Amino acid sequence: MQFELTKEYLEALSQAIAQENMDWIESNVFELHYADIAGVICELDRSEAIQLYQLLNEDVQGDILMELDEDLRESIIKSFSTKEIAEQLELLDSDDAADLISQFSPDQVEEIIAQISDSEAADDIVDLLNYDSDTAGGLMQKEFVQAKIDWPVNRCVVELRRQAENVEKIHTIYVVDDRDRLLGFLSLKSLLFASPSTKIKDLYNDKNVISVKTSADNEEVAKIMEKYDLVSVPVVDVQNKLVGRITIDDVVDVIMDEAEKDFQLASGISERIESNFSVWRITRARIPWLLIAMLGGTLGAQVIAKFEGGISQVPALAFFIPLITAMGGNVGVQSSAIVVQSLAKNSNPFGSILQKLGKEALVALVNGVLLSSLIYGVAHYFDSGTLGLVVSISLFAVIIFAAIFGTFIPLVLNHYKIDPALATGPFVTTLNDIVGLFIYFTVGTILYQI
Amino acid sequence: MQFELTKEYLEALSQAIAQENMDWIESNVFELHYADIAGVICELDRSEAIQLYQLLNEDVQGDILMELDEDLRESIIKSFSTKEIAEQLELLDSDDAADLISQFSPDQVEEIIAQISDSEAADDIVDLLNYDSDTAGGLMQKEFVQAKIDWPVNRCVVELRRQAENVEKIHTIYVVDDRDRLLGFLSLKSLLFASPSTKIKDLYNDKNVISVKTSADNEEVAKIMEKYDLVSVPVVDVQNKLVGRITIDDVVDVIMDEAEKDFQLASGISERIESNFSVWRITRARIPWLLIAMLGGTLGAQVIAKFEGGISQVPALAFFIPLITAMGGNVGVQSSAIVVQSLAKNSNPFGSILQKLGKEALVALVNGVLLSSLIYGVAHYFDSGTLGLVVSISLFAVIIFAAIFGTFIPLVLNHYKIDPALATGPFVTTLNDIVGLFIYFTVGTILYQI
Repeated sequence: MQFELTKEYLEALSQAIAQENMDWIESNVFELHYADIAGVICELDRSEAIQLYQLLNEDVQGDILMELDEDLRESIIKSFSTKEIAEQLELLDSDDAADLISQFSPDQVEEIIAQISDSEAADDIVDLLNYDSDTAGGLMQKEFVQAKIDWPVNRCVVELRRQAENVEKIHTIYVVDDRDRLLGFLSLKSLLFASPSTKIKDLYNDKNVISVKTSADNEEVAKIMEKYDLVSVPVVDVQNKLVGRITIDDVVDVIMDEAEKDFQLASGISERIESNFSVWRITRARIPWLLIAMLGGTLGAQVIAKFEGGISQVPALAFFIPLITAMGGNVGVQSSAIVVQSLAKNSNPFGSILQKLGKEALVALVNGVLLSSLIYGVAHYFDSGTLGLVVSISLFAVIIFAAIFGTFIPLVLNHYKIDPALATGPFVTTLNDIVGLFIYFTVGTILYQI
Repeated sequence: MQFELTKEYLEALSQAIAQENMDWIESNVFELHYADIAGVICELDRSEAIQLYQLLNEDVQGDILMELDEDLRESIIKSFSTKEIAEQLELLDSDDAADLISQFSPDQVEEIIAQISDSEAADDIVDLLNYDSDTAGGLMQKEFVQAKIDWPVNRCVVELRRQAENVEKIHTIYVVDDRDRLLGFLSLKSLLFASPSTKIKDLYNDKNVISVKTSADNEEVAKIMEKYDLVSVPVVDVQNKLVGRITIDDVVDVIMDEAEKDFQLASGISERIESNFSVWRITRARIPWLLIAMLGGTLGAQVIAKFEGGISQVPALAFFIPLITAMGGNVGVQSSAIVVQSLAKNSNPFGSILQKLGKEALVALVNGVLLSSLIYGVAHYFDSGTLGLVVSISLFAVIIFAAIFGTFIPLVLNHYKIDPALATGPFVTTLNDIVGLFIYFTVGTILYQI
């Protein structure tokens, strides 16, 4: 039932494009869901992609454009005149149209807007361009249906029929007063089953009406929709006037982007990148963390240099440097990952910091006792009694320290409104390395009486 | 407009519960959205939580139960008889009811099911219990509305009114043939605006009908709903018979859980844990990776031990051990994170492995040249010319190696159907440490002519 992209299909398509075989393309491409056509276009060569896109029906061109990668989208757009772009924009939802158009230069934006024949659509797009793209205002669309509180059902159906022409999917009908202030909502279901003379007043739901302000942060919108299990959420301005709606599909994209960003931050990548970005862009996103790690390594080198005499006398001390740094790093990352996630989910907002630290310390104690005992035996294999004791004692101290540190850093970052996901990256690892080395060599120097 | 949980509110609530002040509770708790009530309950002491829950209206009890943490949920359920639990289950959607009931022992399940008075609801729950919880069958609910292809619109409205009693939110009406096989769908909007005698046949959409099989994996369902921007997706059995639907709110939970799991795997935590789990459970989830890291550290110790003679002669060689391992680890994690994400998104499925490796190698080359040059200067500060050369050359080699390795491992894991997110964790770091040390000391031994 679903379309599956195969190498055979792609080869046949390339051939059809080269031979301008419209019959094949019509029956094998035009019939597909726009998301699948977008998937196909992504796999083609740049010139084939543009050629195929231009053959497509206007109805789906805009939707497909929205699904493509940024650079492919740009190449395709460049192959059209501003007039043609304006025509494609008119067929898009206002939020998508605003997203697309915002990628042009101010001059081009003006030119394209001027070419949009539907003045209402043009107004909507211009209005949406005012909002920051990371807010509810930037996420919302102007397509929604609303009913006045004093309408009867039959008037409502007539008005909705008019409004609904532009609204692809109606999830909820918003009920407003005569000044367009949001009062509640009405499901299509209740409208469908109500008698024609019933007043909206007596039908609508005014309890627990969830809405978001235009200035609300993207992530906040996602949290609210997730918490209240919403399919769409109305957006209101400071006067509680209904100005737009956000649908769940756009929020799913926000959630996925956010998860991706956190995952990359925790992996030491500072900008959102995709595997098809240029070598230079990928390098730029990655080098900041590597520089921090290198700075950390240099500071570590300085710590060890302080104990150079000790290493000359007992070279075996050097054996366990990687073990100490690796364990400190891993324990720290584990601890901070848990804190970062509990912060992201806002779970247990009143659980005190001391409580969190206490629990982490307890977990670290259990891990520390288990692992230190184990390493004592292992170190014996390398050297006489003293080395085992040095590694074992310092590993214990490093585990406790790294756990407390890994818990503390994200809490501090969060307090100062810095994304705590930063902490699970090389940040915690690097700092734990330095302190771990200091603990290890201090214990070593004392026990070996160097 | 939205409820905000404050310390003052919680204190007043605790007092109201203690004093059995029903007036306060009715006007300050009962009016809230069930998700907010659940949030309030999570912040109360165990006994207060149970007390408050028992005061609530039956209508919302089940919904609230679904929002609570596992152990709190268990405590609350235990405070009810099987008869009372059965009553609460009846008011839930079938998928939620099945999820809740699956936490009981088989004997208890039997007892509760027997107490459910609505036999259709009981059948639905029993049916859903058959499916694996990680599949579309385990995710779907039996509440959906369907219309036969040969009905006229007016018959359809009558039938839907009957069906829709049990369906909280109608997103789409599924159109089936006389053997319940899925043929297409119909929006409520088109039904609302159609004339009563129109046949469903002439109204419904049979193009690009997206459905999932009951056996489809959770993640696959999430991918499909995300790709096609769906609010709900019909679930069919092997004969294409419509058996349920999955709504987007459940899939949002799947997406968030998945993101959390990946983040934790990458942070070296092997089971999904939350910050309020017991110390023992947290330890159990974390110790496997620490053991792997310790094994890695021990192997690293063995590598260094092989070069003990070298360290005796040039103790300064030990200084840069942490730098080499940290850089290898960080580069490896960065490379694997990008591959893991591009695998998760299935983007560029036909991009060859060689292409990925080539690009990573190129990025590594740029990073390697930049960072090696920098470290050459830094190492000079610690020691004469040779150390700078050793660190610089081996750092370059380690960066190239770690990048290739970090790209390769997740691809290999993915090939063998192992979650590639495993790779971004201590796995890549540990292996890179060992190889990095070997490269560093080999270069050192050669250049110092030890």
